[in-house]
Amino acid sequence: MKIVGIEHVGVAVNSINEKAAFWEYILKINRTATETVADQGVSTAIFDTGKGKIELLEAIDPNSPIAKYISKRGPGIHHICLEVEDITSAIKELKENDISLINETPTRGVEGYLIAFIHPRSTGGVLVELAQKQKPQ
Amino acid sequence: MKIVGIEHVGVAVNSINEKAAFWEYILKINRTATETVADQGVSTAIFDTGKGKIELLEAIDPNSPIAKYISKRGPGIHHICLEVEDITSAIKELKENDISLINETPTRGVEGYLIAFIHPRSTGGVLVELAQKQKPQ
Repeated sequence: MKIVGIEHVGVAVNSINEKAAFWEYILKINRTATETVADQGVSTAIFDTGKGKIELLEAIDPNSPIAKYISKRGPGIHHICLEVEDITSAIKELKENDISLINETPTRGVEGYLIAFIHPRSTGGVLVELAQKQKPQ
Repeated sequence: MKIVGIEHVGVAVNSINEKAAFWEYILKINRTATETVADQGVSTAIFDTGKGKIELLEAIDPNSPIAKYISKRGPGIHHICLEVEDITSAIKELKENDISLINETPTRGVEGYLIAFIHPRSTGGVLVELAQKQKPQ
């Protein structure tokens, strides 16, 4: 597979309203998007450094993965997302190498990306998301 | 301050030898450096996506921050490093904003960068490293 770069780092927060200020006003990183992904039970705020984004993740559903993560480990870095050229061929390669996937087919993430998560048991404890940017229609 | 981009994501591992294969041979990210930082008690392996690096961190000293982190939380994502244009002015700005710093003056990190860590209590639980690239002599 061809990894293009670090697309973003996902950070689990209790409150985007309370935690956005550090990234936006102290570090002065441009806030470029705010989006709710209902089927993952999260609200997101995205800060773009120009070379990789910071994605704050707040649970909007007590059963969402982010709510469960925070109740177990507290707020903090949740995952790293790597951009790939072709998510379908990436998933195929990972399966051929017996890598455990959370999504065995691409699903829709923030900003319209096609995404799949790799299970931390195959990566050394790191939740890795792969994402393919969609071409504008 | 001016953030230039995500320089790297630091990942705490029990063994670089065991965990490098996922990043190098499964994800096929170019391994560009291997370095020991004696005063931080770590050995590192660096994988460069071309747009942000993955830095594996293995403790070489049982009292190092990485050894303590793993014994408390297990292996996984340890910190995010943002590249800044000027680390000295960044530290000055952070102090003026009452942000807690682990390093109040720049120290030497891997690849010759001048670095400073921001304490997670000021960031929402995220260990943030700032790094300024040194110009070649």
